[in-house]
Amino acid sequence: MESHYVLSLLFRPARREDVPAIVAMLADDPLGAAREGDPGDERYLAAFDRIDADPYDELIVAERDGEVVGTMQLTYLAGLSRLGSERCQIEAVRVADSARGQGLGRKMITWAIDRARARGCAIVQLTSDRSRTDAHRFYDSLGFTDSHVGYKLTL
Amino acid sequence: MESHYVLSLLFRPARREDVPAIVAMLADDPLGAAREGDPGDERYLAAFDRIDADPYDELIVAERDGEVVGTMQLTYLAGLSRLGSERCQIEAVRVADSARGQGLGRKMITWAIDRARARGCAIVQLTSDRSRTDAHRFYDSLGFTDSHVGYKLTL
Repeated sequence: MESHYVLSLLFRPARREDVPAIVAMLADDPLGAAREGDPGDERYLAAFDRIDADPYDELIVAERDGEVVGTMQLTYLAGLSRLGSERCQIEAVRVADSARGQGLGRKMITWAIDRARARGCAIVQLTSDRSRTDAHRFYDSLGFTDSHVGYKLTL
Repeated sequence: MESHYVLSLLFRPARREDVPAIVAMLADDPLGAAREGDPGDERYLAAFDRIDADPYDELIVAERDGEVVGTMQLTYLAGLSRLGSERCQIEAVRVADSARGQGLGRKMITWAIDRARARGCAIVQLTSDRSRTDAHRFYDSLGFTDSHVGYKLTL
């Protein structure tokens, strides 16, 4: 009988060598498939370098048993609203196909919320494509309110 | 007979001395009124200083005939998605009561879109509270698509 033991689950800032695995997760998605390119494209590395150098931007990976199985980006937005309080924006949340249905996404977002709270952020915000109805139930269950309409204009 | 001539309309980065006027516009709003404080609160200045020092963040004011009559914040977000392309996020759009209904908001957003395009941003994005139905018609008319649900979690 084969059993699977989770030896470790770690959330940590992404390293440059994680970029291909992250891009692969971004592309392995009904919406992402059409808009991503070769994971080795140097534009991905340039974007990584900018995020990595920015003290208000964190690209996070979930590493399970040494393998990257999840990713999300946290950006700490400054603004004058609400007495100049900081907001945490979550973008590009993905869980690898091999790790879906096991509660990893919930652990990731809960971790992000705790991290934002520890920083003193007033709000955590994100947008989710209207077609991702499973994701909507997921964010509802985590206490998020769908109070806003998310507008995009592709240039 | 009294006539009003617009002598000048200028969009420019906000200066520290504009902060009270910006905060007054944020507060003069059905949603903003409950969450803003004294425009002289030093936390507003601290937030301004952070935005001002960040090369990827622009707090913009519209100055008409020497008076600040509009504001918006543009943040250029890095991300791996879409071949590492940059996005422009618009937040905290406000037009002063004295300047409403004169097309200023449209000029501001059009200017922001042009600025994002000139930088090479792939997308312009923003969220709008569900209750702001006039704003929704406005963004629709500017070519935005309400493709996303905007989630917020207040900490």
